[in-house]
Amino acid sequence: MLLFPIVASLLSILYAVFLAWQVLKAPRGDSQMQDIAKAIQEGALAYLKRQYRTVAIVAIPILAVLWWLFDLEVAGGFLVGAVASAFAGVFGMMIAVRANARVAEGAKKGFPEAFSLAFRGGAVTGFFVVGLALLAVTAYYLATQNLQALIGLGFGGSLISVFARLGGGIYTKAADVGADIVGKVEKGIPEDDLRNPAVIADNVGDNVGDDAGMAADLFETYAVTTVAAMVLGSLLFSGVKEVIELPLFMGAAALIASLLGSMAVRISGKAIMRALYQGLIASAILSVPAFYFILNSRISADAFPRMAWFFASLVGIAVTLLLVGITEYYTSKKFRPVQSIAEASKTGSGTNVIIGLAMGMESTAAPIMVIVAGALLAYGLAGLFGVALAAVAMLSLAGIVIAIDAFGPITDNAGGIAEMANLPESVRNVTDPLDAVGNTTKAVTKAYAIGSAGLAALVLFVSYTQELEHVTGRIFNFELGDPKVLAGLFLGGAVPYLFGSMAMRAVGKAAGSVVEEVRRQFREIKGIMERTAKPDYGSAVDIVTKAALKEMFLPTAIVVASPILVGFLLGPEALGGFLIGTIVTGLFVAISMTSGGAAWDNAKKYIEEGHFGGKGSDAHKAAITGDTVGDPYKDTAGPAINPVIKVVNIIAILLVRFFV
Amino acid sequence: MLLFPIVASLLSILYAVFLAWQVLKAPRGDSQMQDIAKAIQEGALAYLKRQYRTVAIVAIPILAVLWWLFDLEVAGGFLVGAVASAFAGVFGMMIAVRANARVAEGAKKGFPEAFSLAFRGGAVTGFFVVGLALLAVTAYYLATQNLQALIGLGFGGSLISVFARLGGGIYTKAADVGADIVGKVEKGIPEDDLRNPAVIADNVGDNVGDDAGMAADLFETYAVTTVAAMVLGSLLFSGVKEVIELPLFMGAAALIASLLGSMAVRISGKAIMRALYQGLIASAILSVPAFYFILNSRISADAFPRMAWFFASLVGIAVTLLLVGITEYYTSKKFRPVQSIAEASKTGSGTNVIIGLAMGMESTAAPIMVIVAGALLAYGLAGLFGVALAAVAMLSLAGIVIAIDAFGPITDNAGGIAEMANLPESVRNVTDPLDAVGNTTKAVTKAYAIGSAGLAALVLFVSYTQELEHVTGRIFNFELGDPKVLAGLFLGGAVPYLFGSMAMRAVGKAAGSVVEEVRRQFREIKGIMERTAKPDYGSAVDIVTKAALKEMFLPTAIVVASPILVGFLLGPEALGGFLIGTIVTGLFVAISMTSGGAAWDNAKKYIEEGHFGGKGSDAHKAAITGDTVGDPYKDTAGPAINPVIKVVNIIAILLVRFFV
Repeated sequence: MLLFPIVASLLSILYAVFLAWQVLKAPRGDSQMQDIAKAIQEGALAYLKRQYRTVAIVAIPILAVLWWLFDLEVAGGFLVGAVASAFAGVFGMMIAVRANARVAEGAKKGFPEAFSLAFRGGAVTGFFVVGLALLAVTAYYLATQNLQALIGLGFGGSLISVFARLGGGIYTKAADVGADIVGKVEKGIPEDDLRNPAVIADNVGDNVGDDAGMAADLFETYAVTTVAAMVLGSLLFSGVKEVIELPLFMGAAALIASLLGSMAVRISGKAIMRALYQGLIASAILSVPAFYFILNSRISADAFPRMAWFFASLVGIAVTLLLVGITEYYTSKKFRPVQSIAEASKTGSGTNVIIGLAMGMESTAAPIMVIVAGALLAYGLAGLFGVALAAVAMLSLAGIVIAIDAFGPITDNAGGIAEMANLPESVRNVTDPLDAVGNTTKAVTKAYAIGSAGLAALVLFVSYTQELEHVTGRIFNFELGDPKVLAGLFLGGAVPYLFGSMAMRAVGKAAGSVVEEVRRQFREIKGIMERTAKPDYGSAVDIVTKAALKEMFLPTAIVVASPILVGFLLGPEALGGFLIGTIVTGLFVAISMTSGGAAWDNAKKYIEEGHFGGKGSDAHKAAITGDTVGDPYKDTAGPAINPVIKVVNIIAILLVRFFV
Repeated sequence: MLLFPIVASLLSILYAVFLAWQVLKAPRGDSQMQDIAKAIQEGALAYLKRQYRTVAIVAIPILAVLWWLFDLEVAGGFLVGAVASAFAGVFGMMIAVRANARVAEGAKKGFPEAFSLAFRGGAVTGFFVVGLALLAVTAYYLATQNLQALIGLGFGGSLISVFARLGGGIYTKAADVGADIVGKVEKGIPEDDLRNPAVIADNVGDNVGDDAGMAADLFETYAVTTVAAMVLGSLLFSGVKEVIELPLFMGAAALIASLLGSMAVRISGKAIMRALYQGLIASAILSVPAFYFILNSRISADAFPRMAWFFASLVGIAVTLLLVGITEYYTSKKFRPVQSIAEASKTGSGTNVIIGLAMGMESTAAPIMVIVAGALLAYGLAGLFGVALAAVAMLSLAGIVIAIDAFGPITDNAGGIAEMANLPESVRNVTDPLDAVGNTTKAVTKAYAIGSAGLAALVLFVSYTQELEHVTGRIFNFELGDPKVLAGLFLGGAVPYLFGSMAMRAVGKAAGSVVEEVRRQFREIKGIMERTAKPDYGSAVDIVTKAALKEMFLPTAIVVASPILVGFLLGPEALGGFLIGTIVTGLFVAISMTSGGAAWDNAKKYIEEGHFGGKGSDAHKAAITGDTVGDPYKDTAGPAINPVIKVVNIIAILLVRFFV
């Protein structure tokens, strides 16, 4: 019965494996390149192993509690979600850390070769993540026919994703900042120089943060959105199967559309962005008939407004494309925001940071308006379920969006390996522009993830209210005039602020440990600067691993504990307000951080292209400050807020019966 | 009948005039000091004249529209509110710009003399503002007996206050940053050096921003909170006079308590903060029996829960003291937040800014929890009117709080004059520590203003819902499950982000004009650096005046237009969500900006005291970046959000009948 989603998701996974095989058979470069790549692979794997071992310490008691509070199916769902989310991150990343040296080697042959290898490497993550997410949800639904068990699955995915995004985000930025402070600033050696003891850790960070962390995040977003739509469909249409299963079929159809769309990615000249967007737009266009076909074949016109549902799903696609366009505007070097940050750098670090912060704040308005307009339109077309379908349609493009994003860390690493292995300048001339585009696509993915998270979280909130009515037998209105609802709204609003603050400070603390270790090595290992002795890369990797894992606990604990506390102490009305409060400030904080951070990064790159004095000028120095500030903004705190707003909602849904 | 509020407010105004006379009779210093003070006076007066002439261009059409839509009483209320708010700012500032040279002169005699003069100068603003606000509301209520006319009065005060806070905030920071960029950075001359053409503009800015702007803001907060409580009392208790008039009597009683409390400000040694807090705590303690007496004598125990109302008013006092304590923690050099920003400066501008942003974000959580707990407690004690009484009680301490704050710009100017007039080092040794305390008290006042604004805005929201029910005859619940309410919530959340972004960029643009003018003078007027020619201070004052006024329009227009647009396009449900959305993100954005900005400033001062390398060290340079970023945060964007959240609520209440 659910053959189509099963087949489509297996196809997607197989396609990912095929792409992986294609990447792996490419030449790996000389022995020095292989050595460096191997060090990165080992570091990344060691980090992930330790991360998931640490996470297990938290996850196993939660598993036991879920089993005790509910049943084996919910606990099993949690396990499936957690393991699949972790696996999605690991598989994509294992290919990424093998693609990097191959892209550097390919860059010797020229631009098209490097681009095509890098894009394939990224597409492995994209199609593996989405295929696995659809497979996990479909199979577990088939096995249990229990929607609460699916919520457990969503919880598992979300919790792992908070850890992966936050831990990976702290790792990547702590290593980056730590390596820069001692290497670039104190010792005056360039980036990606093998004399820097933290250079391998820095490259590991790109993979565990921008690849594995992102993959876990998008796995979670995809799975939770699908589950939320299924749960809402069941609640609104009293358990009609064809409605409950509709999100799975739509996801499957769009996945096929994305597989085909990804083949439209063709580079001509150096128009990288255009090549990537071709794939996205092709996927979006192909999704339209796919959705039409699914709705017409699966949903009976007599019982349900299937045309309205079709148009609601188109709203989701339109929202995705608009969010991509807006984020491109705010983060690309071609437009006013980035250029005005670059210009403000002429008068120093202070003005660079002021204009960067202002741009980050401004960048929230248009996406919010698009999301609001999309939600209102979808609601107008097809009620609450219309909003859910719009969210599902947004997510249906996840495969191609991740593919567009995940090639970024691969090219970033390829550039690093080229530098470390002393490859000719021409190799960097190929990898550098690819890397620069990666900055914008990373920001685009984050805006997409957060936008869809906003819609998905609203759907989860509706599920919470429905579940609450189901449990208590009475109607909850969550009136804004109710002091408890307002109290919850403000308390919920504080969560992203507190979480963001802690995440940023965590980067600072972890970076501090890196700085100390790197300084120690320069002091104790004689001859590093003269290249007569090799630094101990492993020890730096080890230290940043431990620091990142230590720092990720407290913020996550606050996120998990706060809805439980609000639910028990202030009751279900306050908790409803709390959920919405978290979504509202969460969207603003996350968008301002991810877009603002990317804009700072590209403002620096814009100056490096020769504007306002170019590399080494005072403006460039000022822009480096903004870039440093933007790092934990865009790669640690901002993106981790995305799973946060879903975790609090899922916890509320799961525990609602205990709060009344 | 309302004799007591009238007498108390006149007493307060008379006391302010008496203090002004005391200040004015102090010796004015030598002729050079007088010349400088005169230039500052003229610049400040010229700015305010032009500001209010410009604002009149907006206010007069609004006056006409109000007259046309409503009646003469509402339009008259708008006029009274606008003129009184403007006058409150002007009078306090006129004394402040005369106190500055006298404090510098007094500092020659020693610490107690300078402190006492500066505090009296600040207390002029404090007691004049509060006396005038209470007088305006009481007299206009007596004259019209029309609560809608009072809402018009609140609107007038709020609109002027947005302009005054924003225009003054842009002025002060544009002049400051502009003077620093050319003077300190490019020409290497110290702060407050008469060779800098923008030095007078910089000193003018302290007065028009930190004094006149702040005074207009607090006038508005006081008047609007009182009016909101009266309106709510009338709606909830169907027009019973003793309830409607209760806020006026409570305000009058607390004003007397503050007058007495301000006399408890006694300096011993150099414990400035302690001296100021003595006044605050004495005022708070004296307010308790004052409230008890008012409630017992004015409210009949049979008809109303007067003891519950008494306890609700105590909640307001407790919230005030807690907010002061929390802000002190986050912004004073004595505690972890400021010290950790200072420590982060060791590794550069980037880490300084990261930790500063993180601390700003963290600093929102505790105040929000205090406000939420206070609102819930007051509601639990005495329902919605209990929340209104808590807000009134908070505001009743405004006189002493402003007095504590307004001495800051006076000592700042006194230090400047001492420097410019080459007074002995000993004078600066007196004014510098006074100035440093001013940073923290400024932040405390802002947190207080925003906290009370949050409560007042919630009261306004309740009034909006009551008014809506009154107009339509049906009940509005503003349910979070209603897509229109949610849409409004998100759109309202965008207002503080957009407004804050525009305010910060406005400072950048206006500062750019100052930089150009100062550079032009150095280029065209030969001999400035050699002190053989005098720069043209007036022209710099003129340019920053024009730039600030130009930049304040668009953000204010957005604030005024957005509730009208949402009301007309999406209807009254969406507007209800919009109001709450503005309050929620407004509180977070404003608190994170004002506390974060003050923490950056004091982190710099902490380093200048000799920590982490002291003045001139790399850490100090990094801390200057944070201080620059903090300037528009704490003095322009952050505090201006306070009137913004009230303006949108008042517009909604006034226009509600046209949206249905």
